[in-house]
Order: sequence, then structure tokens, then C-alpha cells
Amino acid sequence: MQTLTVGLAERSYPIYIGSDLLGCAELLLPHLPHKRAAVVTNTTVAPLYLDPLRATLQAHGVNMIPIILPDGEQHKNAETLGLIYDALLSHRCERNTPLIALGGGVIGDMTGYAAATYLRGVPFIQIPTTLLAQVDSSVGGKTGINHPLGKNMIGAFYQPQVVLADITTLNTLSDQELRAGIAEVIKYGLIRDLSFFEWLEQNMEKLLARDADALQYAITRSCQNKAEVVAADERENGERALLNLGHTFGHAIETGMGYGAWLHGEAVAAGTIMAADLSCRLGWLSKEDTDRIRGLFERAGLPVIAPALGVEKYLQLMGLDKKVVGGKIRFVLLKSIGCAVISGDVQPELLRQTLVANSAHG
Amino acid sequence: MQTLTVGLAERSYPIYIGSDLLGCAELLLPHLPHKRAAVVTNTTVAPLYLDPLRATLQAHGVNMIPIILPDGEQHKNAETLGLIYDALLSHRCERNTPLIALGGGVIGDMTGYAAATYLRGVPFIQIPTTLLAQVDSSVGGKTGINHPLGKNMIGAFYQPQVVLADITTLNTLSDQELRAGIAEVIKYGLIRDLSFFEWLEQNMEKLLARDADALQYAITRSCQNKAEVVAADERENGERALLNLGHTFGHAIETGMGYGAWLHGEAVAAGTIMAADLSCRLGWLSKEDTDRIRGLFERAGLPVIAPALGVEKYLQLMGLDKKVVGGKIRFVLLKSIGCAVISGDVQPELLRQTLVANSAHG
Repeated sequence: MQTLTVGLAERSYPIYIGSDLLGCAELLLPHLPHKRAAVVTNTTVAPLYLDPLRATLQAHGVNMIPIILPDGEQHKNAETLGLIYDALLSHRCERNTPLIALGGGVIGDMTGYAAATYLRGVPFIQIPTTLLAQVDSSVGGKTGINHPLGKNMIGAFYQPQVVLADITTLNTLSDQELRAGIAEVIKYGLIRDLSFFEWLEQNMEKLLARDADALQYAITRSCQNKAEVVAADERENGERALLNLGHTFGHAIETGMGYGAWLHGEAVAAGTIMAADLSCRLGWLSKEDTDRIRGLFERAGLPVIAPALGVEKYLQLMGLDKKVVGGKIRFVLLKSIGCAVISGDVQPELLRQTLVANSAHG
Repeated sequence: MQTLTVGLAERSYPIYIGSDLLGCAELLLPHLPHKRAAVVTNTTVAPLYLDPLRATLQAHGVNMIPIILPDGEQHKNAETLGLIYDALLSHRCERNTPLIALGGGVIGDMTGYAAATYLRGVPFIQIPTTLLAQVDSSVGGKTGINHPLGKNMIGAFYQPQVVLADITTLNTLSDQELRAGIAEVIKYGLIRDLSFFEWLEQNMEKLLARDADALQYAITRSCQNKAEVVAADERENGERALLNLGHTFGHAIETGMGYGAWLHGEAVAAGTIMAADLSCRLGWLSKEDTDRIRGLFERAGLPVIAPALGVEKYLQLMGLDKKVVGGKIRFVLLKSIGCAVISGDVQPELLRQTLVANSAHG
């Protein structure tokens, strides 16, 4: 098992990464002094991991209140959030009752937001069960829900007390979900860690085969990168925005296709190809490195062509993206593999060329 | 004009209290560097004060996006909150676009919560236009909405950048609203400021006649008391809970009658009488002081008898109150006028006696 710490002064917290952590009561119990917790999960994860977690907790006298939500990004909205509040209130959960998120990024984001806002804030614990959630959404305190007009438009920065990334839970993940997580893993190499990118080029087949050692290494190194960025810039006033590589395009794909049609990681993959292509058109990234990036995403089985929404629709969808300052879209782009920058100075014509060249034509 | 500071380190902010502040652009402009602001108000306040505020802002090149909500506590819910989000998104408001709350406590609480959660947090400015909001809800950073199962159950701690308490706006307040605000003013005297309570006994008629000097003094002294409490305990881990004197009973009245049937200040008045009565039954507060408290509320024209909900209904409603720890109701009670304490040790029989003695019988 690996242990990392996200250093945020009085809001610092540990991330544990390893196998069979759902059975490790000693990692959870220090955070459950009142012997009661609400566990938020979904209809897919509940049959797999709710009973094991319940058994671990009950063996130490902790009473669990299960809250089981419908599965899918299309349910990451105010209505489903209301189901969490309803359950917490009907069970009379109090200010000291922790919420445990047991599931992927959607469960983590919604549970974290419920924890941030129920009774103006209750303790929060993350047990991510997808690769994407383990390397990205469960670390860093971004919580929230979608709005019909944009993804993650409603939310809060709210840090968990502890994160348990149990690699064993990845064995039940579909290949598609595993690949979607790898998209975010590749991202860390691209924005700030060339040698990790090279490691991924050498070990992609092991990751796809779910080799436990390779997974533990990739998750740990991803979380290290994210923890460093978040510790330096918790509220995304600067460097943290680099983590959004591929996300401006990716969110447009997700919103344009309807939440849930594309997995977040898939949209980020196609979006990252667009960001690399635009960086190349700006003369920053070499053609060779652009192809190298595309090659790694292809080997991971991820989409490298965005869906056929049409250029105007893409531009409109990006106009509503959160990462807009003073009416200009700010892109995360690449100077090289391992070095991302933010730029608001992109000629509209280059952007159009990128959108045309990297999306399907229906 | 009086100026106070709420001392919360990097979240400290000024409160300005005086006449005709809506025309004082110099108080607002430092907080509007991007020349754009969304103003959230309601159908009652908009015809009175939206145009004056717009004129002040426009004269300095600040573009205002008005968001006008239905008026009343019954609209302080997720649905109305959604109207704010919808407007912010359709106007493409960005992370640096401040939200200005122009109205009473409901507008302030909802706008603050929208500011805390839109794009994970945008700047927030309070312009309270009721006495209640000026002395209570606009200071201290509590924001939120109601849930059908309880008041203020969903929310966040989120501090404004500045508060403008314009006494001139109180001239259009109904007598009933003015009195509801006075209930919270009296509360500050009761919990921690005996000499202010005595000042109120001597100046109640001036306040009811809306004497500007008396109002400015009462608002300033109330805000001073609140600012001291909040600076010492922003997140209500201790002393801040004393500000809830009368609120455990009061919230039960509001929830039991349906939001909006009783004004918050009216419910707090009847609830404070219950708290004083219970303190008296516990042998803490003298009968003489209990009568003195009731007398001042009566002189302010406030209800001193709670509605006829029945004892069992009151107990049930209080069981869902946020101020519950370990299944016990914690009451804010009085040791004397000017000295409040928190106690979880109230014999159920005394509580029943208080509920019977101080509520109407239908």
C-alpha cells in the first residue's frame, strides 16, 4: 500500500492506494468516531461493494445508512442530489455524520457536494471505485453537479478527510471504463511529467491487462502529480487550471452529445488530441510529438476523433465553459510533452481548423 | 455613516451602516473591477430600489444583470435557486462576476448560496433592505435554502466582500417587517449585552417610529455584537450557536406553520419567550427577568404566544433541527439578561410544560 498526503494546511488529508482496502477498517475508523456514516453509491456499485464495506464497518460497531442512486453522468443533477438530501434528513443525519462516496466520479462529485452543503458542511470520505475517480476526481476537492446549460456549473471546493483507492475494485470495471481512466493518467504525463509519459509508453499493455503493480504505480504517480498541483493552487487561480488539458473541448463533447453518451475520459481523450493539434498549429508542439500523443491514446483504445457536432455548435458549447475570462476562451495547450501552458490568445481561424480536422463529419 | 469590520483573516470584510448608501458608488466600485454584476432581488424590492442601484452603477460604467425572484420565505427553495443559476448561465456570468443581494434575508441567503456554488464560488455583495437582514442574516456568512423537511438544511458558509446597510431603505418597510427585525435586535441584548437591552427598553418607541439616529445606533450595535461572535467562531463550533437563541423553537414554528406564514423574526420572538420560560423553569432566570423580556417583546408589537401546533408536533419538528448532537436537542437558554448558555440537559417534562404554557390552544 502507498500513502500520499495532499498538503492543504488544516485541510490536509491522506490518500491510501493499494489492494483490498475495503477490508481495512483501521484506515476508516479514525474518521468515524460517532459510529455512524451514510454511504452514497449507485445501482451498479452497490451489488459489488456495499456489503463488503458494510461488513467492515459493522464489525467495528459502525452503523451504515446506504443511499443508492441511479448510475450515470445523466443523473449528476439537482434532482439526484435532492435524493441524497432527502435520505440524510429522513435518517436525521447530523453535523457529525460523515458521508462516504463509494463509486466513480459522478458519485464522488455529487456526494462531495452534498457533504459540502448538507447542514452547511459535514465530514466527507472518498472510496473511488473507478480508475478515473482514483486518479482524478477523488483528489483535490472539486465537487458539484451538472446544469442543463453546462457541466459542473454548480459546485464547491470541499476536501475529503481521507481517500481510499482500492485497486481490487478495478477488477470489475469494464474495459471501456478502464480506458477512460487511462485518459486522465496520460494527461498527467502530458502536462508536467515527461518521464511518466515515457513510462506509460512502455507499460500501456500492462495497465490494460490490469497488472496490479502497474496500476498501483500509475495511480500513485498520477495522485502525486495532482496532489502537488492542488497543494500549490487549491482554488484554481493559476497552475491548477493546467489539469483541465483537453477539458474545454471535452466538456463541449459531453454537453453536446448529452451527458452520459460519451464517458468523461473518452471526451477528454478526443479533447486532448484537439488541444495537441491546436498547439501544433500554433507552432508550439512538433508534428512528431503530436503524433506520439495520438499514438498513445490510440494504444489505450481511446477515441481520437471527436463526434460530428459541427464547428458552430462546438464554439457555442465552449462559450459557456467555466474557463472563460473576459469573454475569451482560455485554452490549456502544450509547449512540449510534459509542459502545459494556458493561453487566451488563439486566433479563431486556427481553432476552427482544429475543430474541423479532429471531429467526425456527419 | 458607521463602518465596522468583520475580522476573519483573509475573509475579513467591511459593513457600512448609514443613510442613502445606495447612491454611494465609492463603497461598491472597489468590488466591481470588471464593470459587471448580477443583482438578485425580488418583486417587492425591485420596483423600489433596483433603478436607484442601477443608476449608481451605470453612472460608473458598471453593467447590471437584474434577476428578479418571487417574494417570500416559501420561495427560499431549490426551485427558486435554480432560477438564479439559469439566469447566470444564460447571461454567461463568469467567475469574476459578483452577485449582489438586494433585499431581505431570503434574498441574501439564496443569493449568497448561489454565489458560493455557481462555478464553485463567485464574489458576493450584500445590500440588505430589511432591518432583520441588516442586523442578522447579511452578517456572518451563513447562506442557504430550505428543504421541505427543515429550514436552512442546505447551505454553505460563504462571506460577502462588503455589506451596505442603507437605513433609508427601511422607510418602505411594513410595520410588521420592522418589528420582526427588532426581535433579532433584542436577541443581541439578551445573549451578551445587558446595557444594549437597557438601551432598547429606553428607546423602543424611537425605533418603532423609525428615528434614523436610533436605527443607526441599534443596527451598528447589533452588527458589532454579531461580528464579535462570528470572528471568534465562524463555523459555529461553539459560541456562535448562542446567536440561535429562540431559533430552535422559532424554526419549529416556521416549519410547522409552513414557510412564510410567520415572519422569521416573529417566530424568533415567540421562540425566545419559550427559551426564557424554559430557563425560568430550570431555575436559571428569575421570574422578574422573564416578565421583563416578555414585556419588551410586547412593546415591540411582537407575538409572545406561539401558534397552536400541539406539543407532539413541536417535539417532532425540533427533532429535525440542525442543532441536535447525539440525538439530544441542545437549547440556547438564559442565565440572566445578557448571558446565554447552551444546554443539552433539559428534562423532557420541563420542555413540555414550556410548550404548553407558551403556545395557543386551537
